[in-house]
Amino acid sequence: LIRIAVDAMGSDRGPDEIVAGALAARSDRIVPVIVGAAELETHGLELVPAAEVIAMHEKPTEAVRAKPDASLVVANRLVAEGAADAVVSSGNTGAMLAAGLLELRRLPGVHRPAIAVVVPARYGLSVLIDAGANSDARPEHLVQFAQMGSAFAEHVLERTDPEVRLLSIGEEDEKGNQLTLAALELLRDSGLNFGGNVEARELLRFAADVVVCDGFTGNIALKLLEGTIVDLFDELRTEIRASARGKLGGALIRPAARRLRDRLDPDNHGGAYLLGLRGLSVVAHGRASSKAIANAVRLAARGVENGVVDRLAERLPDRVASARPT
Amino acid sequence: LIRIAVDAMGSDRGPDEIVAGALAARSDRIVPVIVGAAELETHGLELVPAAEVIAMHEKPTEAVRAKPDASLVVANRLVAEGAADAVVSSGNTGAMLAAGLLELRRLPGVHRPAIAVVVPARYGLSVLIDAGANSDARPEHLVQFAQMGSAFAEHVLERTDPEVRLLSIGEEDEKGNQLTLAALELLRDSGLNFGGNVEARELLRFAADVVVCDGFTGNIALKLLEGTIVDLFDELRTEIRASARGKLGGALIRPAARRLRDRLDPDNHGGAYLLGLRGLSVVAHGRASSKAIANAVRLAARGVENGVVDRLAERLPDRVASARPT
Repeated sequence: LIRIAVDAMGSDRGPDEIVAGALAARSDRIVPVIVGAAELETHGLELVPAAEVIAMHEKPTEAVRAKPDASLVVANRLVAEGAADAVVSSGNTGAMLAAGLLELRRLPGVHRPAIAVVVPARYGLSVLIDAGANSDARPEHLVQFAQMGSAFAEHVLERTDPEVRLLSIGEEDEKGNQLTLAALELLRDSGLNFGGNVEARELLRFAADVVVCDGFTGNIALKLLEGTIVDLFDELRTEIRASARGKLGGALIRPAARRLRDRLDPDNHGGAYLLGLRGLSVVAHGRASSKAIANAVRLAARGVENGVVDRLAERLPDRVASARPT
Repeated sequence: LIRIAVDAMGSDRGPDEIVAGALAARSDRIVPVIVGAAELETHGLELVPAAEVIAMHEKPTEAVRAKPDASLVVANRLVAEGAADAVVSSGNTGAMLAAGLLELRRLPGVHRPAIAVVVPARYGLSVLIDAGANSDARPEHLVQFAQMGSAFAEHVLERTDPEVRLLSIGEEDEKGNQLTLAALELLRDSGLNFGGNVEARELLRFAADVVVCDGFTGNIALKLLEGTIVDLFDELRTEIRASARGKLGGALIRPAARRLRDRLDPDNHGGAYLLGLRGLSVVAHGRASSKAIANAVRLAARGVENGVVDRLAERLPDRVASARPT
């Protein structure tokens, strides 16, 4: 049985949505454990009470230190203590990172944990790392993100010798900012299967098995991708409904449009791994629906089954060492 | 008559595509002047010969210094000497910036010219600045980009007191990287109509009259937006064609889909203004079609008619002064 600690508080949609998602993910092998206010209705799921909540606007590190009984901190602690196998939260992402650092601690050799998101690209799934854990990063951090993303692509997406590319503003080696230009040199010497720069226009098509960037750029890219997909479908629907001919056509293409939309729906993945900690942590969107939460819980369970943390731990120290320019 | 110097060399599609675009833009008031190899067939358009070409992969500043007779440099010089009113190129963007700095020079008070792109957002046109001129920028540069974007929105898009927002990874003031956190403070004191941070997910919907960011982030955002739009239409077409029912529906929605696609087509704008120079400079995509080039030439002509450079020059020094924290 895989026990997943689910933080029910601090999301945009409220605890009932989270509990509903956890319930939907419960199965023969998955046992969700709700962490939240003592008075929550959990419909039979185990409840670990937590007296405090960290809100979206709170400063992560300060909030985690000031509120040791916050649901998100307690949920991480359950994993650290072995009472749960993984933690899922749709609360403050920065606070999840801070609580992970405090309660789970870093894997040996890891400087900065990073968020790995699976992008449903046209020609295959692609790992985008860092999707938002580190707003500012140094070139050597990008090499570690690439190493963690590569191990993830190998062990979870089952890619052999996954190709890593660096998100930049042109494919040529000369294109980039100070951060990416320095990271490009380090990545070439890293021992990874590194394919150079890749442009953002390739992201939804298939940029690489692993696309590496700093967390600011990754978060901008991810949200732009999600927003543009939602908006384009909305706009197309509006245009189609403007005429009787369009309405008829719209009814006929509905199954095709739904297939595409379902494939691109971020709720299908539900969350992203926060990699680099000594325990499995999954962060979901602040506005995650119950469907997204259910998938985030399943994603966490899959990570436990695949031993993601142990595999990262096995692989990282070597790769970190080999990344140092000699 | 408005004379536009059109650099025919250095684009991905070759000089014939550029000449075709310039020809298409020729009108009662627009006189394109082709700058390129002496043997070019210009179909009656005036030709100013230029012996050299700057390629896409060349280092901008070095290339511009080493090749004073490159088409792109000569085209800028025509504007500096008053022989043309604006310059258009789909060559190396960095070299356009370097040639602009050398031949046209900066407007007084401008630290860094920036690229302003018009984003065809759902609820109105939006100016994204900087879309790629400066891969690395300091907080005070972002304030100037905002000032230039604001003047552009006011005088070209005819917005009254345009709202400026800062592209970041959350709407809250605490969200961002070191650059945006510092720029946020400066923008609040700038005298501009500043609305705080905006997330990338809003960009295609309508984020603000002016969305400001560094050139690396802006270029990533722009290319991701363009790539995602192209790819989603492609994928939808593939899904629709997979069944007979879909094919029929696809035929019926074609006019609606085309309206949307035309509105979003970057070729409709064709280019972007390189703002902050003492002359009007328009950069087009390296892979710009003749249609895009024609629209870039018209965009340049509109900028000349609206006196974009003079209006920036009038407004900028005050705004630069008022932007300094007191």
